[in-house]
Amino acid sequence: MSLADTLTEHIRRVTGQPRVALHEPSFKGNEWAYVKDCIDTGWVSSVGAYVDRFEHDLAEVTGAKHAVVVSNGTSGLQVALQLAGVGPGDEVIIPALSFVATANAVRHCNAEPHFADSEYASLGLGVPALADHLARIVDRRGGASVNMHTGQRIGAIVPMHTFGHPVDMPALMALARRYAIPVVEDAAESLGSLIGERHTGTHGLCAMLSFNGNKIVTTGGGGAIITDDTALAKRAKHLTTTAKQPHAWAFVHDEVGFNFRMPNLNAALGCAQLEQLPGFLAAKRELTRRYADALKDVVGVTLFTERAGTRANYWLQTLILDADVADQRDAILSHTNAAGQMTRPVWELLTTLPMYRACPSMDTPVARDLARRIVNLPSSPQLVAGTPT
Amino acid sequence: MSLADTLTEHIRRVTGQPRVALHEPSFKGNEWAYVKDCIDTGWVSSVGAYVDRFEHDLAEVTGAKHAVVVSNGTSGLQVALQLAGVGPGDEVIIPALSFVATANAVRHCNAEPHFADSEYASLGLGVPALADHLARIVDRRGGASVNMHTGQRIGAIVPMHTFGHPVDMPALMALARRYAIPVVEDAAESLGSLIGERHTGTHGLCAMLSFNGNKIVTTGGGGAIITDDTALAKRAKHLTTTAKQPHAWAFVHDEVGFNFRMPNLNAALGCAQLEQLPGFLAAKRELTRRYADALKDVVGVTLFTERAGTRANYWLQTLILDADVADQRDAILSHTNAAGQMTRPVWELLTTLPMYRACPSMDTPVARDLARRIVNLPSSPQLVAGTPT
Repeated sequence: MSLADTLTEHIRRVTGQPRVALHEPSFKGNEWAYVKDCIDTGWVSSVGAYVDRFEHDLAEVTGAKHAVVVSNGTSGLQVALQLAGVGPGDEVIIPALSFVATANAVRHCNAEPHFADSEYASLGLGVPALADHLARIVDRRGGASVNMHTGQRIGAIVPMHTFGHPVDMPALMALARRYAIPVVEDAAESLGSLIGERHTGTHGLCAMLSFNGNKIVTTGGGGAIITDDTALAKRAKHLTTTAKQPHAWAFVHDEVGFNFRMPNLNAALGCAQLEQLPGFLAAKRELTRRYADALKDVVGVTLFTERAGTRANYWLQTLILDADVADQRDAILSHTNAAGQMTRPVWELLTTLPMYRACPSMDTPVARDLARRIVNLPSSPQLVAGTPT
Repeated sequence: MSLADTLTEHIRRVTGQPRVALHEPSFKGNEWAYVKDCIDTGWVSSVGAYVDRFEHDLAEVTGAKHAVVVSNGTSGLQVALQLAGVGPGDEVIIPALSFVATANAVRHCNAEPHFADSEYASLGLGVPALADHLARIVDRRGGASVNMHTGQRIGAIVPMHTFGHPVDMPALMALARRYAIPVVEDAAESLGSLIGERHTGTHGLCAMLSFNGNKIVTTGGGGAIITDDTALAKRAKHLTTTAKQPHAWAFVHDEVGFNFRMPNLNAALGCAQLEQLPGFLAAKRELTRRYADALKDVVGVTLFTERAGTRANYWLQTLILDADVADQRDAILSHTNAAGQMTRPVWELLTTLPMYRACPSMDTPVARDLARRIVNLPSSPQLVAGTPT
């Protein structure tokens, strides 16, 4: 029996279904009630009680002082970078192994991605290797850290918590402080993920969350900026709502703003979803246990689990192929998908995409290796019967 | 009795209510059925049947070959400009009298607004004055029309159909053709507005529609790009959905794209709203008739009505104060709002906002004059009893 056959059989045994998606949302809470309330009251749009409540609830769940909801994660990261002072001609350090939105948000600020390697322990930015890289390339000029090869300022570092597995933020923050570079967390995938007792997204200056349809909590489409900095949160709200000065009727806008509002209709869905986060987290953890159990005797694969001192949200279940079977990845993907068990590889390395090929980059051997060896498995919370989904 | 008193009394007589908003959406159709369907099926996010259907229905209603829905009007205009070839350092001609989003979308393309005057007949771009202005400033260099004072290429002209009143598009298209400048219509306010039998937004290369909460049809927040150009529509969809190449699982993106998707949840609301557009249009037309009737004997004000050969959607009811009572505008606004009849002035001229003050501009005497004299009146379709709202 081939590895692809074996894996397909074991995955199907865990999902218990002939056809199963990679990740589907579960709407068994107050989704109906809150969304219907928006329609009944006419408050579907850019202001409304659910927007305020969702922001309040997000702050409470993450432990951040403030949350500002926005139209999606990409827009949220773009604004978060701007808030951190990133501007045209800056470089922003991001992982080579990330969804394209991380790089796009940098470009939308007219800045340039500078790619960094990953580490095996977290699947995210590897701090020791980045420290070596910065030591080699950074020239301190006045207060700024400048890439001596390009002459461009390094405006921010953006760790991304891959599939909900936290980057080593204490180490990264210490490194960033040494270079006086702000840290903006791409926490799109890590709502519910902790380092010790502290939520991902609360270590850096600010962070972006995503509530796209495939995320652990969805608003259809949406995102948020979280931060402990009150002035920054206020400016985030101002910038994302056309920079209009408060007035009963006059239209005075004081800078170039964005329309990145989250409609009240979507925030209503988010409020209902967030109430169920503990149940989703429990279901995903149980699903990890079941996959780990089912796959423990399969030679050549390892289910990726949280590193010590962290608590992952297990947003997407992640299989790492041994190096010597990495060449079977596409066969595994074809076979499982053809058999109705939807799997996917990790993203193409951003350094290989045509629009980012020429950007500065450190050597990325770990990211290159992981990019060949990761397979995500069906991860919907409702695959675990008996959980509140 | 002061003019403010008189107007308040007459407006209240038309609205028939002690407290009335400027514009509220009306959800008496299939809104809940379609939104519930999204929640029940789990299809709330970036792909789904209502996205496809809303795009189809919008094309049908406007007569455009294609519609591509996006997260909001500002984002739609930004992409529409990019599709028209607008790039960094270009100038884009827009009316000085418009909502700030028109200018922001230009800036989001790293281009610069170049402000034009309005005309009294349409409240939008005045074509004869713009023709004179272009004759004075344009230097034809190769195929391009260049502003000889700044040396910047004029990349597009963006007429905006103010409160649903169409700009003279045949005249504008003839002018734009002479200078080989693409026209991108800001039709945010003019869904349902026609020139002859032809829908606004279908004269230029492409157009943007808005479905913000205050618009004639709402999706909570949202917009669309409409065009007859199939290649351009395809590129609009590609650019607004992260520029991902179609593949069963691989993440290959071939240019810097955006996440400007409209979620299926919001498209579902839009489908239900669009079914009711004929009723909304009839109600707004009847409301215009009632205001005109109520105000016909009030000295100093004129209700603005559609110009010959056009059919306005009457999105916002518009009062024009006589020049000699323009100084009473703020008193009228204060008085009517204090009395629960919500009114508002037109936008501050974009040429007066700090971030746009230094941009190139033609002289704008008409826009300056109109900016002092416009008052919008309560305009919700449900103010007309017996209409299907």
